[in-house]
Amino acid sequence: MTTATRIDWTREHCRLLQAIRREFAVTRPFEGLTIGTGIHIEAKTVALLTTLRAGGAQVVATGNLNSTQPAAVEALRAEGVTVIGAQTRDEREHGRYQRELLATQPDLILDNGGDLFARYLDHPYPSLKGGTEETTSGRMRLKPLRDRLRRPVLVINDSPIKQFAENRHAVGQSTLESLLRLTNRVTNGERVTVVGYGACGRGVADNLRGAHAKVSVVEADPVTRLRAHLDGFDTPARDRALSTADVIITVTGAPGVITAKDLPLLKDGVILANAGHFPVEIDAAGLLKAPEVRAVREYEDDLATLELADGRRIHLVARGHMFNLAGPRALGNSIESMDLGFALQARCLEAVATGQVDGTSCVVPVPAEIDAQVADAYLADRYQ
Amino acid sequence: MTTATRIDWTREHCRLLQAIRREFAVTRPFEGLTIGTGIHIEAKTVALLTTLRAGGAQVVATGNLNSTQPAAVEALRAEGVTVIGAQTRDEREHGRYQRELLATQPDLILDNGGDLFARYLDHPYPSLKGGTEETTSGRMRLKPLRDRLRRPVLVINDSPIKQFAENRHAVGQSTLESLLRLTNRVTNGERVTVVGYGACGRGVADNLRGAHAKVSVVEADPVTRLRAHLDGFDTPARDRALSTADVIITVTGAPGVITAKDLPLLKDGVILANAGHFPVEIDAAGLLKAPEVRAVREYEDDLATLELADGRRIHLVARGHMFNLAGPRALGNSIESMDLGFALQARCLEAVATGQVDGTSCVVPVPAEIDAQVADAYLADRYQ
Amino acid sequence: MTTATRIDWTREHCRLLQAIRREFAVTRPFEGLTIGTGIHIEAKTVALLTTLRAGGAQVVATGNLNSTQPAAVEALRAEGVTVIGAQTRDEREHGRYQRELLATQPDLILDNGGDLFARYLDHPYPSLKGGTEETTSGRMRLKPLRDRLRRPVLVINDSPIKQFAENRHAVGQSTLESLLRLTNRVTNGERVTVVGYGACGRGVADNLRGAHAKVSVVEADPVTRLRAHLDGFDTPARDRALSTADVIITVTGAPGVITAKDLPLLKDGVILANAGHFPVEIDAAGLLKAPEVRAVREYEDDLATLELADGRRIHLVARGHMFNLAGPRALGNSIESMDLGFALQARCLEAVATGQVDGTSCVVPVPAEIDAQVADAYLADRYQ
Amino acid sequence: MTTATRIDWTREHCRLLQAIRREFAVTRPFEGLTIGTGIHIEAKTVALLTTLRAGGAQVVATGNLNSTQPAAVEALRAEGVTVIGAQTRDEREHGRYQRELLATQPDLILDNGGDLFARYLDHPYPSLKGGTEETTSGRMRLKPLRDRLRRPVLVINDSPIKQFAENRHAVGQSTLESLLRLTNRVTNGERVTVVGYGACGRGVADNLRGAHAKVSVVEADPVTRLRAHLDGFDTPARDRALSTADVIITVTGAPGVITAKDLPLLKDGVILANAGHFPVEIDAAGLLKAPEVRAVREYEDDLATLELADGRRIHLVARGHMFNLAGPRALGNSIESMDLGFALQARCLEAVATGQVDGTSCVVPVPAEIDAQVADAYLADRYQ
Repeated sequence: MTTATRIDWTREHCRLLQAIRREFAVTRPFEGLTIGTGIHIEAKTVALLTTLRAGGAQVVATGNLNSTQPAAVEALRAEGVTVIGAQTRDEREHGRYQRELLATQPDLILDNGGDLFARYLDHPYPSLKGGTEETTSGRMRLKPLRDRLRRPVLVINDSPIKQFAENRHAVGQSTLESLLRLTNRVTNGERVTVVGYGACGRGVADNLRGAHAKVSVVEADPVTRLRAHLDGFDTPARDRALSTADVIITVTGAPGVITAKDLPLLKDGVILANAGHFPVEIDAAGLLKAPEVRAVREYEDDLATLELADGRRIHLVARGHMFNLAGPRALGNSIESMDLGFALQARCLEAVATGQVDGTSCVVPVPAEIDAQVADAYLADRYQ
Repeated sequence: MTTATRIDWTREHCRLLQAIRREFAVTRPFEGLTIGTGIHIEAKTVALLTTLRAGGAQVVATGNLNSTQPAAVEALRAEGVTVIGAQTRDEREHGRYQRELLATQPDLILDNGGDLFARYLDHPYPSLKGGTEETTSGRMRLKPLRDRLRRPVLVINDSPIKQFAENRHAVGQSTLESLLRLTNRVTNGERVTVVGYGACGRGVADNLRGAHAKVSVVEADPVTRLRAHLDGFDTPARDRALSTADVIITVTGAPGVITAKDLPLLKDGVILANAGHFPVEIDAAGLLKAPEVRAVREYEDDLATLELADGRRIHLVARGHMFNLAGPRALGNSIESMDLGFALQARCLEAVATGQVDGTSCVVPVPAEIDAQVADAYLADRYQ
Repeated sequence: MTTATRIDWTREHCRLLQAIRREFAVTRPFEGLTIGTGIHIEAKTVALLTTLRAGGAQVVATGNLNSTQPAAVEALRAEGVTVIGAQTRDEREHGRYQRELLATQPDLILDNGGDLFARYLDHPYPSLKGGTEETTSGRMRLKPLRDRLRRPVLVINDSPIKQFAENRHAVGQSTLESLLRLTNRVTNGERVTVVGYGACGRGVADNLRGAHAKVSVVEADPVTRLRAHLDGFDTPARDRALSTADVIITVTGAPGVITAKDLPLLKDGVILANAGHFPVEIDAAGLLKAPEVRAVREYEDDLATLELADGRRIHLVARGHMFNLAGPRALGNSIESMDLGFALQARCLEAVATGQVDGTSCVVPVPAEIDAQVADAYLADRYQ
Repeated sequence: MTTATRIDWTREHCRLLQAIRREFAVTRPFEGLTIGTGIHIEAKTVALLTTLRAGGAQVVATGNLNSTQPAAVEALRAEGVTVIGAQTRDEREHGRYQRELLATQPDLILDNGGDLFARYLDHPYPSLKGGTEETTSGRMRLKPLRDRLRRPVLVINDSPIKQFAENRHAVGQSTLESLLRLTNRVTNGERVTVVGYGACGRGVADNLRGAHAKVSVVEADPVTRLRAHLDGFDTPARDRALSTADVIITVTGAPGVITAKDLPLLKDGVILANAGHFPVEIDAAGLLKAPEVRAVREYEDDLATLELADGRRIHLVARGHMFNLAGPRALGNSIESMDLGFALQARCLEAVATGQVDGTSCVVPVPAEIDAQVADAYLADRYQ
């Protein structure tokens, strides 16, 4: 009888990374190279960074703003990864960690939001081979810098695999799971309004319908709204969709989707939750201090109920933060969906390290052959 | 800004009980009567017992074996409910609490498993008007005692509302939620074998399919198996269903569904979980001590991995205990599904207290008019 | 290259009846017996009656009112079945055929609606062994006659297999297929109101939701309405459900569900269709002659558009007749769903003929062991 | 009481074209212009061409190879459309009609497969303003000719609306409807293998799953195969997917998907049907003359059963032709899905006629603002 942690559990179930790790231990694609990264330091990323380490890399990591988990730092250090800094919400402190990381002149950068590549341009050095960028917002930030970067930078989130495996399916599912876990409320027969019908919104709407909710979609783009309609969702005008909802979930990527101005519309007992990445879609601060709010009642697990002067109650989940990562037991997207994305990361970094892509591949999607390789690996044996 | 607990949250969202409580505060159906109960003492039952209290009852409660929650006891006492005893796994101690409760000669009994009615017959007293029984196993135990009970005993679990609202929908959904919350594994594309296709099994199969799993059903009764087949589920022979599964969920009500004898069949990486009420369907003890088990690895949240001598790993959730109530964040079935069942309880006790049913209604289902009244109340206003 | 008919196709795909036919050719359970039947004479019943014939029976058949198909009569006669009479809508003529049939004093009766058993009591004869009744309305008619019948009469429609295989799944699906085939209109995103949520209504609602319609359910019984709600359907009040519908499908079993009085409620462009057995749920005659109807436009395939004085158009499918059997290409419920029901018929008649059931089984459901036998046969080999 | 035809029914339910027709009657965008078209002449295109006529155009039409329907020709001529030629399968005759059409020097071309634009280049004339192309194959043919065309040619099938409304949803649904209508076989619990998981294949797989079939997907591209897997479909290796199927539906766009070489794999009783545009995916001719075929049995509605020497029977639907348009009652994709596509046609031709697009828009997708306009029109009023 041995005991193990959630980090162990996660790592052991990253099937693709495990196989790549065994391969890298032989092929050593990063022998002699340093990889610098600003990816979140939590259970799942441990599996990625230790896989890179197994491929011969020196790995130097500093976390993202606020998200660094001490147990993950410990697990990384136990495997020889250098971790700079600690959890912080202080942007200047965070910037100092990043500069310290770049001072090691990593050969490859695994970026998250474009911070490291952007800072690299402040103090460029010739040995940088290129790297990867995890996010779409990073891609948008780095694209205008291509003339100066002139190195391969492969954008993971632009892979179709990320779009359907993570954004659509995994986010949709963890949103449903979080709603149940946090509120313990029924979904059957409830009117749920999903604001936004991109890949994430489609997943949220699909999973809530699978849970027997009556789902309406609010979507600004008429072509996408028609798509939602033909997918069988109600597409009422925004104000009606808000005023009839028992649950409202925002997943637009845009700020100010629900603000204090909407309070008059909302139904007694409505639940407000944000599944978008940034805590800007529901203006929680604005709602809490709205003049018609008579009292706020705070519950365990970051639930809050706003009592309005006219007696209506508005339930706010996770203060508008991405609620599928909220609460003490939030494990987030499924291990397999992360494993897919991180296998793309590992293969892309391998491609950059071994010169399979060149400087013309600067801020471009994952090469199609890497997508195909990872998809094949996922399905091999187990599902065929 | 006030703070509140999960018990408050639960109680505030028991919409039906809240309305009944307001009504009972006026009608006082239990004025001058004592209600004795052996129902579990946890967050949701607080809402029921305090509603009865609001109807004028003296309420005397002792918990069920092992399940009593201290915070719930405290909440009950704060509202004037008498709680006898405390959490115990000692059956004799538990029996002593029940005898102590019956010594108060309650006018009405809200039973759970038939213990109190059966013990009442040891020392009968004339003032007992009758009461309710929550479970099917209680019904089976009390039915042969009808000639001696000769009082109205209404069985809640035989209501169609309990069958579809709780057994089918709520158990199905909390099973999916728990699988995600505890394992963090993908369900999409996974082969899930559900053993048992009663009301609970249908709910589990339906919710897992809604989560994009490929669901097979094992069911001994051929007519029910045909039903599963026409519902679109694969219905392979038992051994094939077990040997191809990535996840196996038992929900049969029968013991010994999965035992150490099945180890040779199981696939590397399979997850075993029981959603049935009693921890007997998966013989966890037998599996753990089977000779082919080389090592056991224990993780947080009561997950365990059995490593077999041939290298296969078997993941066991919650040691075979009903896993939709397992783990530190398990809230169980949705508040609304419990609210429906407890509204049936409150209305049935009211009917017995006010003489709307007589001794011919001894160990019979909830009267149809009470089912109709509760269904109407659930749908009124909000969903019409 | 040989050519064959739809009757051949149907018969060849009645897998269960084919196997029973082969068995009966050896076991000859009806050797020396005459079976009289008033079942519809159409493609699917040919498979049943020729199976009985293969079991040694003399089969004497007269059709039901109006439904007799000449090609089916021909196919039956080619296999030695005696067919009395021809298609008729004249009830007196139809009655004459039935009396003529009973004059042959069949040993077994395969009844449809209770006509033959009821007429038998007018002129009873001792050699009648008993038989089967296909329908629920037949059961309701024959139940009060049990003291006089005193013979086994097994009611097919009370089998759970019939309920889920035919009423729920097959009717639901043929309703969707017919809506598409007849109207060629989109279902995605349309508001469909299903009136009635019995087994058939659940099937219709489920299939339309599978076709991406937004389905509302109108149901008089509050418990069943709650079931529809928790199954995820909208359950608005009747008038709102009618006034917002793009399509209304009645499947209640009751008359006068939609009448001319409802015309003010209906939306421009609504489609009205009845999936219930009798053409009484939508009062087509009343609608067509309502004063606000300015003109009626008739299309191919029994579609009609009522133009109201205020400009609204109401589309009426099949004049309120059961529309999943309407139109020149309507094949009705799937072959397999009929094969299941007819296998129950063949096995029940075998049980009566061979004395496995006695006079205490008078107007009772199919015996559980026959349900199990047929379910097993359906799943054997092919689906396990 | 007036009588009307299926063409009338179809036209009256083309809601978008009806509104455009009323608008065009006022705005007259084609005043003085001639539109030449080679689109299929059948019920649905009547609605389009008469709408263009209402906008002031002279319309000169010749059908596509083989598909011209006499009733549609009649309806067109009744509204002043010039129809050249008649139904023919003779390619030379068909070519002569096209040349005759181009001799009228139409100002705008509504092409279908690129024939007319390609022939125009043989004898160019300056007055051609440009036009539209319906198909992807036409786009592929015309793209290399852009330098010579130098006029706006807008490709309808590249619109996202066409992709999701027609290819995914409408084809998927008409495939299900046709399978039911032609075979009358159950789908519940059957193993259906869909070959191809593009937009059409996704729709077919989704609709069959909605009909409670167990759906497997065969797809050559691993990324798309992973998508099918995560959507919850089985993705076995091709040969296993074929050998376990009760129904095989091809929808790949590629030739030779199922050939006589596959006969050894196929299960007794399998149904083969092609939902792809061209009758090349299932090699019907090759199957029919394969040496192991002992006999062929032909049924009504273009069903055929191949009896193999070893006793297996293979059922072939519509001889491998696109079976959702097969049989005497095939109405094809829903009216609304066609109405959407034809509204795009009408708006694109209007844009070319009125100079809103110029020669730089040569063989490009529908402009985004036209997609938005049409989507808005579809949802306006009725669905918001």
